Amino acid sequence: MKKITTIAVAGALLALAGTSSAQFAKPEDAIKYRKAAFSVMGAHFGRIGGMVNGQVPFDAAAVASNAQIVESMARLPWAAFGAGTDKGETKAKSETWSDAAKFKSLSDKLTAETAKLSAAAKGGNADAVKAAFGGVAGTCKACHDDFRAK
Amino acid sequence: MKKITTIAVAGALLALAGTSSAQFAKPEDAIKYRKAAFSVMGAHFGRIGGMVNGQVPFDAAAVASNAQIVESMARLPWAAFGAGTDKGETKAKSETWSDAAKFKSLSDKLTAETAKLSAAAKGGNADAVKAAFGGVAGTCKACHDDFRAK
Repeated sequence: MKKITTIAVAGALLALAGTSSAQFAKPEDAIKYRKAAFSVMGAHFGRIGGMVNGQVPFDAAAVASNAQIVESMARLPWAAFGAGTDKGETKAKSETWSDAAKFKSLSDKLTAETAKLSAAAKGGNADAVKAAFGGVAGTCKACHDDFRAK
Repeated sequence: MKKITTIAVAGALLALAGTSSAQFAKPEDAIKYRKAAFSVMGAHFGRIGGMVNGQVPFDAAAVASNAQIVESMARLPWAAFGAGTDKGETKAKSETWSDAAKFKSLSDKLTAETAKLSAAAKGGNADAVKAAFGGVAGTCKACHDDFRAK
């Protein structure tokens, strides 16, 4: 069963790799792109963090705007992890490709958790935002722990 | 009259700089962020370009999705051109700050032109997309010519 899942995921990643090679002329373009998407996501996630952690006064409109950008950005980097993008200026560990099923599962989780954060942010309740923020932060950390070199 | 406009724009940029220093802990964070936003925008704009120029078959859904990301990204970099972000790993020329009124006018034009591209893309008409694409490309070039070092 695990093997079937792995094969299915490998197939999905191959399809993705096909798309991404069409989308990026060179592997370094893909690497630059995914790092840029993570950077933009991180900057806006950090702004919500400042409010969740009380360093900056909670501003519901700012949280909603930042959360929407985080949600949009969270969908982007994955197409840029295609074949041949494991070398170069990247901190992505080889497990990104050798344990593609887990990587895919965490990227899907990030998409889901950032959607929850965006929904909570639209609601404007600080406690709900804080809970959803924690869900996203935990997903970032889980993926960085396994797939990103220190 | 020109002086009043310049003062008004300078005031607006000061307000922006206030916001951006609150948003970025260090000038290099702002520089990294704006470059990342331009990178993501450029990647998606380039994909539309491939279709507009006939290198890749025109795919209305892909154009619409890419154009929406371009439109969202086009709003982001400007808050990261605050005071103190003229030094470091940046190609932004000193005119970005000394001719702030013109820079602001071109950044507003990019926002408007990318919104037109996104609207045309939703319409799905290849000729309309091509025209709107030209409007965005011309705005990129005009700003790069004056404000970005080669």
